[in-house]
Amino acid sequence: MSEVFGYMGKIAFVDLTREKVVVKDLPKEWIYKFIGGEGFGAKILWDLLPPKVSAFSPLNPIIFTTGPLTATMVPASGRTSIVFKSPLTGTIGASNVGGFFAPNLKKAGFDVLVVTGKAKKPVYLWVHDGVVEIRSADHVWGLDVEETTKELLKETHEKASVACIGPAGENLVLFASIMVDGGRAAGRGGGGAVMGSKNLKAVVAYGTKEVPVKDPEMLRKYALKAIEEIKAEPFTSQLLAKYGTPAFTKAINDVGILPSYNWQRTTFDKIAEIDHEAYHRKLRVKPWPCYNCPVVCGRYTEIPEGKYAGEKGHGPEYEAVAAFGTKLGISDLYAIAMANYLSNRLGLDVISTGQVIATAMEWYERGIIDSSVTDGIELRFGNADAVIEMIKKIAYREGFGNLLAEGSYRAALKIGRGAINYVMHVKGMEMAADGVRASKGEVVTHATSERGADHLRPYASAVDAFGYIEPELGITEKKDPLKDTDKAWVKPFKEYSMLFNMLGMCYFTGILLAVKPSTLAGLFTAVTGINTDKETLLKSAERVINLERAFNAREGFTRKDDTLPERFLKEPAPDGRGKGQIVNLNVILDEYYEAMGWDKETGLPTVRKLKELDLEDVALELLK
Amino acid sequence: MSEVFGYMGKIAFVDLTREKVVVKDLPKEWIYKFIGGEGFGAKILWDLLPPKVSAFSPLNPIIFTTGPLTATMVPASGRTSIVFKSPLTGTIGASNVGGFFAPNLKKAGFDVLVVTGKAKKPVYLWVHDGVVEIRSADHVWGLDVEETTKELLKETHEKASVACIGPAGENLVLFASIMVDGGRAAGRGGGGAVMGSKNLKAVVAYGTKEVPVKDPEMLRKYALKAIEEIKAEPFTSQLLAKYGTPAFTKAINDVGILPSYNWQRTTFDKIAEIDHEAYHRKLRVKPWPCYNCPVVCGRYTEIPEGKYAGEKGHGPEYEAVAAFGTKLGISDLYAIAMANYLSNRLGLDVISTGQVIATAMEWYERGIIDSSVTDGIELRFGNADAVIEMIKKIAYREGFGNLLAEGSYRAALKIGRGAINYVMHVKGMEMAADGVRASKGEVVTHATSERGADHLRPYASAVDAFGYIEPELGITEKKDPLKDTDKAWVKPFKEYSMLFNMLGMCYFTGILLAVKPSTLAGLFTAVTGINTDKETLLKSAERVINLERAFNAREGFTRKDDTLPERFLKEPAPDGRGKGQIVNLNVILDEYYEAMGWDKETGLPTVRKLKELDLEDVALELLK
Repeated sequence: MSEVFGYMGKIAFVDLTREKVVVKDLPKEWIYKFIGGEGFGAKILWDLLPPKVSAFSPLNPIIFTTGPLTATMVPASGRTSIVFKSPLTGTIGASNVGGFFAPNLKKAGFDVLVVTGKAKKPVYLWVHDGVVEIRSADHVWGLDVEETTKELLKETHEKASVACIGPAGENLVLFASIMVDGGRAAGRGGGGAVMGSKNLKAVVAYGTKEVPVKDPEMLRKYALKAIEEIKAEPFTSQLLAKYGTPAFTKAINDVGILPSYNWQRTTFDKIAEIDHEAYHRKLRVKPWPCYNCPVVCGRYTEIPEGKYAGEKGHGPEYEAVAAFGTKLGISDLYAIAMANYLSNRLGLDVISTGQVIATAMEWYERGIIDSSVTDGIELRFGNADAVIEMIKKIAYREGFGNLLAEGSYRAALKIGRGAINYVMHVKGMEMAADGVRASKGEVVTHATSERGADHLRPYASAVDAFGYIEPELGITEKKDPLKDTDKAWVKPFKEYSMLFNMLGMCYFTGILLAVKPSTLAGLFTAVTGINTDKETLLKSAERVINLERAFNAREGFTRKDDTLPERFLKEPAPDGRGKGQIVNLNVILDEYYEAMGWDKETGLPTVRKLKELDLEDVALELLK
Repeated sequence: MSEVFGYMGKIAFVDLTREKVVVKDLPKEWIYKFIGGEGFGAKILWDLLPPKVSAFSPLNPIIFTTGPLTATMVPASGRTSIVFKSPLTGTIGASNVGGFFAPNLKKAGFDVLVVTGKAKKPVYLWVHDGVVEIRSADHVWGLDVEETTKELLKETHEKASVACIGPAGENLVLFASIMVDGGRAAGRGGGGAVMGSKNLKAVVAYGTKEVPVKDPEMLRKYALKAIEEIKAEPFTSQLLAKYGTPAFTKAINDVGILPSYNWQRTTFDKIAEIDHEAYHRKLRVKPWPCYNCPVVCGRYTEIPEGKYAGEKGHGPEYEAVAAFGTKLGISDLYAIAMANYLSNRLGLDVISTGQVIATAMEWYERGIIDSSVTDGIELRFGNADAVIEMIKKIAYREGFGNLLAEGSYRAALKIGRGAINYVMHVKGMEMAADGVRASKGEVVTHATSERGADHLRPYASAVDAFGYIEPELGITEKKDPLKDTDKAWVKPFKEYSMLFNMLGMCYFTGILLAVKPSTLAGLFTAVTGINTDKETLLKSAERVINLERAFNAREGFTRKDDTLPERFLKEPAPDGRGKGQIVNLNVILDEYYEAMGWDKETGLPTVRKLKELDLEDVALELLK
């Protein structure tokens, strides 16, 4: 594909069943319609996967994508979007991860790597210099993420990037993660289990090709503009840079959207023991940078004392502090860090893992289960040793862990006795640690996200709970976090958030609206030479969001699935800024569907909307 | 478990993830409630598998069962019932197969073998002398069924029985079979794919223990009575014995329930070229007996001439003659036999495979797909070479075969353009070759079967199309095959058919009502020493049927899923004895649900019915 800038112009298709690699040209029209990254992933998933096919079918592709900004001088342009059908939710699975994988994949010559089929025995892929090699992974099957990463770097290239699974993925734990560079997680939705079902232990990429840039001078100008915008946003440039994501812990607690004791409360009583200052006081902390990032929010820590003295690893990030801390009533940062290291090594999604255990603890405390079910483990809030033990049991599918490995929703169906009332999930995926009664914008995010319980598409709390505005998105005034109506602003904010995943840039430069939409347009134009503006880009993002919703519609999802745990619909928040609040879900959904131009009865894109977005083929397939 | 006759008293649980075998005592109360065989399988599946869990989850058990009559002197007591959640339908999967596997499993010391988990690398199980060994199957992975069987017999025991998968199971083809003794198929529902998902290539069993019999003299008496009853039924003792199941071909054609050209017609224009006489004239035919069977309906054949000269293998059975013959408009018996051998070797369910191709041929003929979709293959009715090619493509998931490997229902959803109208399925499973517009009893069988499109639970045509009666079941007069009402007789007949699968006896001794229910009761009492009567046994069968329906209910199935392909509901039969008939589904379902004591609105067992069957625990779980 000549004369295209910003892309390598190649997609590698790997069929593990037949041990065959085919490289095809990137269809040029996709650039205009889907931009790249998750956009390409959603398009390929839609095209390749027949409806109602098991996520563990060899037909389910696992798609590693890069965007047009990936591996350029654009700040924070190292994100990988990984797309697949999720075994946890049955929806589209779309995980996004930092580190150095996407830049290496792209510099190796590929915009996208699509893996289908099922290998006879464990394999890994070695991607470099325009080729994809299928290699035996017999010797690393069973190894944890750190061991696997180390070994595969040794036998490929020391500067390569490894995306691999741990024992959890091998054992098809439904919330197994794909781990990049030993510690960055594509955590959500069970991509690791999809890799496991294919006997695909890892993809290793290393590349040195240059990404063709149309207008390097213009790119320099806009990259500097983006860096300036990041600097101008104090939370991002100062708190995140100084403290990493643990900077969020206290901030989120203060606005009443921090879950504790499995969401029974919305603030944490021992916040001072785990906030960013405690974190940096107690743990030995080093920054850990992703590709070309001026913020450097990643942290690598070591436990200096106690029973886990000397243990170290990536994180814990904010979500891990909540998942293994506040949600479980644990304020011992060493135990939290250890649980996080362990989950990462075993290849478990930290968010689901902590949330599954939080739910099980509430079952235990309420007498719905007892120690005869939990293999003798006292699953009480605050019992950190029990958490460490349960993490291992889940990854290796031992005893009670074998049930929890199917996620909290399915486990509750098996247990019965009202267990489902304490499952904090949407579409079968466990909730992260953000929202929702004191941020009605997050109600939209969580209930309607195309990938299940999602706090990031968009991080609506930024606007309503934290008071950010962005005139370029039409958000010109502060929003009331407790108000049920007035939810149209979520639409442009969601499109903006999706745009980062399509361009290959980190949403953390936009989570608090630092980098402006017009800057993104400038970056895209500079790299690709395609003249665009923010409206056109946001329209592309809207197209991808609608395509993802159409995928879910084809699988049978409708408005009835856009819902929240009973707790939020019926129990008034007991504390925090949202005290006394419940969620009036239907009002909020109506507002949002109206803004999206979707049918209110079904919650699905209308034919008119799909046509407006040049998705006639999608409309036709949905109608058939 | 002492003092129990007819059972070995042991269940082996194998966890492939942990490479662990645990042997437990058979709970004595199960004997009274569930008898054995498929009854034990359904009970274990209900207990072990949480709802909504993927059929490819390590949690999904694959359960090999024997019954109390297995491996005794009872005629035709060699059947194995294999139970699992079906990846094809999402319902309970229950396959039943002849040969020598169950007798060997039982004589090795086990009533039941339950396999869960997922092995790291290919393994097989070697079951003998009260132990289960987990052995590497690296060297046989990729081999076909005949090669695998031969190799595993060599390295275990020449008199052992092998239940294995072929490449289709390894590649997770949703209708992959489990093949016993190299040529008998546990075909329906994709048990082979479940084994493949566990990296379980085979189970090999060999045993020499004696089954404890309470009253050998009484058993002798009833075994002789059963043999007399079989002899007294002329079709079974003469036609089946002389011609094997191909004896059915012409008989079924004559009553207008033989599908041809993908069910566009209900008789076959070239019947004389493929009926039992042609079969025995053209092929070299040898009988192939199952364990202790006086009928010996199995056939082993060889193609004497033409392009497949010298090829040989098990079958083709009647269903294969229809699946690869009449449904495809093929009257070349050599091609039919070759397609059958190939499917068996690759480990494909012959019924689904032929039906999938029949559907694809109708798509092709109607212009819904063309050769650009079929990898250039001319999928026209009558094109035998295309069939051979497609079978390989399906098993190895190549090209169009990769889509068809997901079954005709999912393939149609992907193809669209009205393709679904020609998919002959129930609950996602392809129909066999029996029924339904000229046998309204078969409407019940097919639409309501707990395992998808099923022609055998019961083989209702025996009563309404062929005019058999059985006063012991309350069927005292011939039934009108075209009548929509009067369907209560299907209930006792279905219970009777299920009883064979629970006792471990071949339903072919009851398909035409040869062996009387009271004889089954006598056999059971003689073997176990438990005094019983036919009413009690039929009640146990009703219990198992209700438990299976409860399993499906827990997975989300209701009356809406008890349906038939559109063709039968709207197109009057064009020929045969049912000419002009359509299926008035709702009338028929109402009649049947009424007889079963099920709720007519939902099609599910009522709490009252479950309580009546001592299934309070099941009722409670469904209500939760």
